[in-house]
Amino acid sequence: MRMYDIIEKKRNGNELTEEEIRFFVDGYTKGDIPDYQVSALLMAIYFQDMSEQERAQLTQAMVDSGDKIDLTDISGIKVDKHSTGGVGDTTTLVLAPLVASVGVPVAKMSGRGLGHTGGTIDKLESVPGFHTEISNQEFIDLVNKNKVSVIGQTGNLTPADKKLYSLRDVTATVNSIPLIASSIMSKKIASGADAIVLDVKTGAGAFMKDLEDAKELAKAMVSIGKQVGRNTMAVISDMSQPLGFAIGNSLEVKEAIETLQGKGPKDLTELCLVLGSQMVLLANQASTIEEAREKLEESLANGQAFEHFKTFLSSQGGDPSVIDDTELLPKAAKQIQVKAKQTGTIESIVADNIGTAAMMLGAGRATKESEIDLSAGILLHKKVGDKVQEGEPILTLHTNQQEVNSVIDLIHKSILISDNAVAAPTLIYDTITE
Amino acid sequence: MRMYDIIEKKRNGNELTEEEIRFFVDGYTKGDIPDYQVSALLMAIYFQDMSEQERAQLTQAMVDSGDKIDLTDISGIKVDKHSTGGVGDTTTLVLAPLVASVGVPVAKMSGRGLGHTGGTIDKLESVPGFHTEISNQEFIDLVNKNKVSVIGQTGNLTPADKKLYSLRDVTATVNSIPLIASSIMSKKIASGADAIVLDVKTGAGAFMKDLEDAKELAKAMVSIGKQVGRNTMAVISDMSQPLGFAIGNSLEVKEAIETLQGKGPKDLTELCLVLGSQMVLLANQASTIEEAREKLEESLANGQAFEHFKTFLSSQGGDPSVIDDTELLPKAAKQIQVKAKQTGTIESIVADNIGTAAMMLGAGRATKESEIDLSAGILLHKKVGDKVQEGEPILTLHTNQQEVNSVIDLIHKSILISDNAVAAPTLIYDTITE
Repeated sequence: MRMYDIIEKKRNGNELTEEEIRFFVDGYTKGDIPDYQVSALLMAIYFQDMSEQERAQLTQAMVDSGDKIDLTDISGIKVDKHSTGGVGDTTTLVLAPLVASVGVPVAKMSGRGLGHTGGTIDKLESVPGFHTEISNQEFIDLVNKNKVSVIGQTGNLTPADKKLYSLRDVTATVNSIPLIASSIMSKKIASGADAIVLDVKTGAGAFMKDLEDAKELAKAMVSIGKQVGRNTMAVISDMSQPLGFAIGNSLEVKEAIETLQGKGPKDLTELCLVLGSQMVLLANQASTIEEAREKLEESLANGQAFEHFKTFLSSQGGDPSVIDDTELLPKAAKQIQVKAKQTGTIESIVADNIGTAAMMLGAGRATKESEIDLSAGILLHKKVGDKVQEGEPILTLHTNQQEVNSVIDLIHKSILISDNAVAAPTLIYDTITE
Repeated sequence: MRMYDIIEKKRNGNELTEEEIRFFVDGYTKGDIPDYQVSALLMAIYFQDMSEQERAQLTQAMVDSGDKIDLTDISGIKVDKHSTGGVGDTTTLVLAPLVASVGVPVAKMSGRGLGHTGGTIDKLESVPGFHTEISNQEFIDLVNKNKVSVIGQTGNLTPADKKLYSLRDVTATVNSIPLIASSIMSKKIASGADAIVLDVKTGAGAFMKDLEDAKELAKAMVSIGKQVGRNTMAVISDMSQPLGFAIGNSLEVKEAIETLQGKGPKDLTELCLVLGSQMVLLANQASTIEEAREKLEESLANGQAFEHFKTFLSSQGGDPSVIDDTELLPKAAKQIQVKAKQTGTIESIVADNIGTAAMMLGAGRATKESEIDLSAGILLHKKVGDKVQEGEPILTLHTNQQEVNSVIDLIHKSILISDNAVAAPTLIYDTITE
């Protein structure tokens, strides 16, 4: 088998065999096939696409290129949730204890990563004492005991995906549905979940700006999941504006706590109920989606979800008193209100820019070496569709930095106030189950 | 400027600027831009094509990447001819002395190369004593004196093209009209000709199997030539069967001599008159194509062309007595006739296979290190459309090898004899001047 023939075959629009896909994935991972042949193939895939079968085979080949997490010692159907990313997305912090509280095992492997805010682990570290440096056995025991645990990434998962992603990143081949879908799914599948709920974001603040693209990606991932034997479904949700009110690490933990107490932002709460119901259903902890939702609503109402969050955090060293009194969370020295320059209705909040503003305030990492300020971030007071008076605070900056004028400029440029009535955007666009 | 943006721009189907094209050609030649980014761009070009302007700019950037031959000390309009390659193509051997004999300066830089037979230099070396190791000054003096000289390739011409071609060869991006056209034209332009006549072959034995593809390539090259200020035209000619009768080095020299004496194969003679007339016209040595052709026919008829070949060869050390008596050319020990297995009409002669057979007999190089047997090759006695009796010789193998059964098998498989009447194929399909 020759890489040349594989490139030519795909270039001509033909379907690759499983053997050919494994040949290039394994050969590239081992360094036997050079970058320049793989980048040519990636560009050919960009133009010629891949069949559903090819996508699944590519995903499985990437999974098989490295370590796989074995969660078989955890009882029950392990359901993982993945979001395609956005701004102020606090869903993981809420969902993990919420669905665990109704019996869904959540064995979450998480990272720190770059971005507007830290990753799930950074956020949870806002709670003093909380840590994810636990052994695999401890992790499994905790999930069996509490139905939820978070561990830092271990092992060499999907090295083929890492190598391919780095190459795509410098050859303008990131933006390809089969390549995005297989990349995301390979990581989820290698992480050992039995079932996967995908939250595919769409809108200005999402990777998929366009609803149709988001649907196509969701369908691609659901198809891959099912083909490799993992029950998978996707929700298409709005990311035209930040989700919830908080963007920042300790700010999001506070928001998660409020949400678990039934006092959270409407959109965040609703999305968590929608995603959570699907997780409960996939985990066989309810027989209908309505029953699943009722269980979750009850858990929020009766304090069970909130208590579960405390149990989860304290079992990994977190100080439970902080959960009861969120004033004890890391707090920035300065809170600066940004006020409306005119009266009207909020027409748009450019999510990307608000995320960038939060990063400028210290909430995120620009490079792997950057230090995160857990207390920094932005708290929105208004969302799209809300009325606002001139001089009324739209949001508050939380920061320890001296100079924030450029951040305030960016904020004013990114929030549009209209004279006309504006409706709040749709939150859930679609549910993809096949 | 970033290579990433150039790849993305072309991937999205947009036209690159001259600055962007020079950036990637120069950067790649210098080694500043890695193979894997260039191969991604090449594949994007494969799918998105290039505008006429982009093609010319790419060609010029490749010309400017290395040395350029300066022919300004040669008086007159220097016209070069280029063929896209085929089997038994003896036109260069005939055309150089033929057009020189009517006043067109032919300053030919040539190589040896791989293929079914040797290159022009190999072929001419069948004449004992002939050599092309002459100085640039000697070369220029010879063209000014005799209107024709051939020199071996000197200098580092179009290094960008060499590097890009090597990459295309391993990434399935050879077969792209803008890339083929710019590659051929860059070499011709760097070689210093003022005007260029292209012989684009089509049919089973040519790179462009399909007539429409051949026309597209011809138009692409003519457009590039005109844009960079070189008067350029193309003839589309048949290569469904080998041209002329001879395939092999000394066999082709003998055929060229016969043709220059007015006794050559009809198709080879006609193609040389068609291409030659265009060269005479572009060199301003005639005011109409009819006048140009008359001059050439006269030169063939009155022995002037033949005498010019002798002058040319002897001025570079060749033994002129060999031209007068072609029996003195290198001759293979064995001549083996291959005979028709049935009576009928020749329906097809698969040119590629006949070329391969000639190479198997020793006429060509399979690798750079291979030795050429100048005496080896194939002499056809029949062409497509000719009637043949069972047992009548179709062709003769010339070889010094012991074992030729596999060659004979290949020949029988490659020559189809039909019970039906078959017309000889069209020789000239089209003439492209813009």
